[in-house]
Amino acid sequence: MTELPTITAFSWVPDFAKGQVRDIIARWAFAELGLDYRTELLNAASARGEEYVEWHPFDQVPAYRDEEVEMFESGAILIHLGERHGHILPQEPPARAKVLSWTAAILNTVEPALRPVSLLPLFHGGKPWTEEAVAALRPLAEQRLKRVSAALGENDWIAGDFSIADILLVFVLRSFGGDMIAAHPNLVNYMERAMARPAFEEALAKHLADFTTEPA
Amino acid sequence: MTELPTITAFSWVPDFAKGQVRDIIARWAFAELGLDYRTELLNAASARGEEYVEWHPFDQVPAYRDEEVEMFESGAILIHLGERHGHILPQEPPARAKVLSWTAAILNTVEPALRPVSLLPLFHGGKPWTEEAVAALRPLAEQRLKRVSAALGENDWIAGDFSIADILLVFVLRSFGGDMIAAHPNLVNYMERAMARPAFEEALAKHLADFTTEPA
Repeated sequence: MTELPTITAFSWVPDFAKGQVRDIIARWAFAELGLDYRTELLNAASARGEEYVEWHPFDQVPAYRDEEVEMFESGAILIHLGERHGHILPQEPPARAKVLSWTAAILNTVEPALRPVSLLPLFHGGKPWTEEAVAALRPLAEQRLKRVSAALGENDWIAGDFSIADILLVFVLRSFGGDMIAAHPNLVNYMERAMARPAFEEALAKHLADFTTEPA
Repeated sequence: MTELPTITAFSWVPDFAKGQVRDIIARWAFAELGLDYRTELLNAASARGEEYVEWHPFDQVPAYRDEEVEMFESGAILIHLGERHGHILPQEPPARAKVLSWTAAILNTVEPALRPVSLLPLFHGGKPWTEEAVAALRPLAEQRLKRVSAALGENDWIAGDFSIADILLVFVLRSFGGDMIAAHPNLVNYMERAMARPAFEEALAKHLADFTTEPA
């Protein structure tokens, strides 16, 4: 009997973060691939200690382990699962290059522009990040969304067939897009199309079902 | 005769950006691999037009093309070059998983924490991003650097042998680390060690030599 791959997730987070923690990215990939996995649950209200930091140097979730490798960071776990199990990361070079391009762009160009617009008011509302300071970040976030919308056009998915790039992009749009998405009907439809996939529904349900404890 | 791989770079940027544009990431990888390439030069002072946006949806550099694929985003180009040409992205699963983990972490966890501390004062100096508002971003950036420093420890490189993760990390530390690096002597030494590599020196020299025009 082989051991199931393991990811870490949280057993408790504040309500606003439920549905938004990055273990959902790995869960979605597992569900698309029809793979079983187990979760090792941590409590977001307490630091995880040195042993966990050996596994995940930034003390976040998800970390990942299978019979062969240990790793961390949801973007990397997606690439690993795609390399190992197929279709969410194509083998054929032009299609693969396109998926890798979008994967890196979402991690490094799209999310970093959107995230502060959505998170800074949440964590430090008013002072020192005034409405004016946060508003000054919106033009870049809106420009990036406009470029994503233009690249998507009338296609179903961002980089050819459904891929790891869509898993990441939908995560970013759901978690950090806020009211900026509404300006782009094709992105609204894209999110609906993605979230209607049985694999997304399964991942979200399992993600929510693991919130089983109170703050540590 | 085979055609050389092509990357895009800028023929002009403001002085403060010289040495810091992301084509240097791809150039460094080419130099480590001993590969020739050609550059297609664009002017940072003007938008590149629709044809370029077909190639690079975010209208940035570098974009990449070889006889088989077209792609964009420096992080993705590194993975592609590593898959194609070897040692900067190991094949052996545990080593590969570690390099991919760090690659994604630098793109999505380290750089996004450091970049605004360094860029907001530059682009929005004083108003609306007051010193106080920028200072409030420092604790996260400093925590991330502390975790990178702890993970590096006394090792030469961040993820085993020298890899694409080092190319990205050194780029981020050079461009966005600013005065925060000095608190971590092992990171200072790491940067010196990396920048003393002949491949880095070659990449930097070629990067600088391509700034040959005035603003468009």
